[in-house]
Amino acid sequence: MADIKFEIEKELGVIAESAKGWKKELNLISWNGKEAKYDLREWSPEHEKMGKGVTLTTQELKSLKELLNKIYL
Amino acid sequence: MADIKFEIEKELGVIAESAKGWKKELNLISWNGKEAKYDLREWSPEHEKMGKGVTLTTQELKSLKELLNKIYL
Repeated sequence: MADIKFEIEKELGVIAESAKGWKKELNLISWNGKEAKYDLREWSPEHEKMGKGVTLTTQELKSLKELLNKIYL
Repeated sequence: MADIKFEIEKELGVIAESAKGWKKELNLISWNGKEAKYDLREWSPEHEKMGKGVTLTTQELKSLKELLNKIYL
């Protein structure tokens, strides 16, 4: 796999942590120098390794917020 | 890759749709016959192909909801 450059511009919050220290985090991340996007993903301690996740635009995150506030959890 | 069996038990909502018809969806999905989990992921039309995504427990989705209601979007 080609190298992916990323910079975590803002750590917004952690929604889960596993026994091994991996965390599900919401961050604002710039990938390969592009404009930063919201990113929901699992990370190893100290952000050394990343797991699978999704990137989201501001509008998509707003839609997700509205959806979560609408459904029963 | 080994076959993955999944069953979409509940379609909770769509938060984005691309020009090619792929959608970012929040669903409740049972993977390989296990207890269903929340799942945020991109899907092709008719759920024929899936993109990368994250699975979330009820507690994690609640944490995400609280986080989204706390930050400025």
